[in-house]
Amino acid sequence: MPKSRWPTADGLTQRITQEQGVLPIFIVFEGVDGSGKSTQLHLLHKYLTDKKIATYTTREPGGTPVGEKIRELLLDPAFSEMQERTEALLYVAARAQLVAQVIRPRLEQGDVVLCDRYVDSTVAYQGYGRGMDVDFLVNINKLGTGGLRPQLTILLDISPEEGLARSRQERPADRLEKESLAFYQRVRQGYLGLTKESSDYLVLDARLPVEELHRIICDTVGGMVGA
Amino acid sequence: MPKSRWPTADGLTQRITQEQGVLPIFIVFEGVDGSGKSTQLHLLHKYLTDKKIATYTTREPGGTPVGEKIRELLLDPAFSEMQERTEALLYVAARAQLVAQVIRPRLEQGDVVLCDRYVDSTVAYQGYGRGMDVDFLVNINKLGTGGLRPQLTILLDISPEEGLARSRQERPADRLEKESLAFYQRVRQGYLGLTKESSDYLVLDARLPVEELHRIICDTVGGMVGA
Repeated sequence: MPKSRWPTADGLTQRITQEQGVLPIFIVFEGVDGSGKSTQLHLLHKYLTDKKIATYTTREPGGTPVGEKIRELLLDPAFSEMQERTEALLYVAARAQLVAQVIRPRLEQGDVVLCDRYVDSTVAYQGYGRGMDVDFLVNINKLGTGGLRPQLTILLDISPEEGLARSRQERPADRLEKESLAFYQRVRQGYLGLTKESSDYLVLDARLPVEELHRIICDTVGGMVGA
Repeated sequence: MPKSRWPTADGLTQRITQEQGVLPIFIVFEGVDGSGKSTQLHLLHKYLTDKKIATYTTREPGGTPVGEKIRELLLDPAFSEMQERTEALLYVAARAQLVAQVIRPRLEQGDVVLCDRYVDSTVAYQGYGRGMDVDFLVNINKLGTGGLRPQLTILLDISPEEGLARSRQERPADRLEKESLAFYQRVRQGYLGLTKESSDYLVLDARLPVEELHRIICDTVGGMVGA
């Protein structure tokens, strides 16, 4: 099991471990569009619930009524004039709502929480992709989330060409997907850079067969949750 | 004319002064609901345009298509579960958009810009009203606005009882107005505290007749813009 370099905020882990004998597990799936992270997240959810492990799945941006409204705004192609600072702050606003209204309460009751995207998405997309100041992004995210970090981040790594080709088969391109391939190259390198700073990552080649990826993920997560 | 303690960001003032011989003037109106700030803002706009001074009026939260969407979300009574960090970040997101898309470009072309609420509203309402960390709010606002400060802030000071009685005659209470009077007392004291930290404020008793307030404001602003 990966060790967390960032203790969760407010002594949450420690308190729950002491009071209930259960370690709250917060797992994030990251990757560029078309990497298959949503597929793997849902397969893991099914695996854990089949093992009778209480599991809650959510996504970013969104996951709450307020967050879903913010998500609509972020993905609307009509708002092409949206400034990069505005975009970053909207992602953090949705995340602050999700953490306070959903993730913390679920962790406090002992659920495993699976989340489709989290802070690393902001750092990879707005920071490395758009060239915004990474320290600024990390700081507003720390403030917005109260410092809550996942115990494990599963990165499904894929080239932008392959990822976009896969996601475009499914539905029309939204505003974010209209960005250039060079942008997505920077996002991918940003993700890979983050994984080198910590041992909290499981980096997987997203081109592997769905079943094989699922097996590797279950092996890692099973060890964490005792499944 | 009040001297600014906070130079505008990116050398904006200096650059425009040098290139065009025109000092960009950014004036903010602040006060609790029902203080009459919007009335005074519109009277000042008319006064300046009658003097042939190019003047642009905007408001917060809103003032841009993205910002108006955020404003809808902030004022919707359905979102009573909105967390305080989310609210603060949404205000800053709308403000970042307004500054980048509207205020800076207007100042750069030499317009006088009048704005209904700005950073002080966040500090007064979320900081002093709700008890959020004022340094946190100031820092996310500095980052969101790139440090742009008004040359003059006109505070229309009124007791919450009188202000709310005035605003409730006009329309139904929205989510923010349903807060307690004690909250609005803290907001008022927060505003008054801010005015003591700088000479960039004109503090007026909002119970004075509309015409008298307008005359005082025109005297002050007229000296700044040479009207």
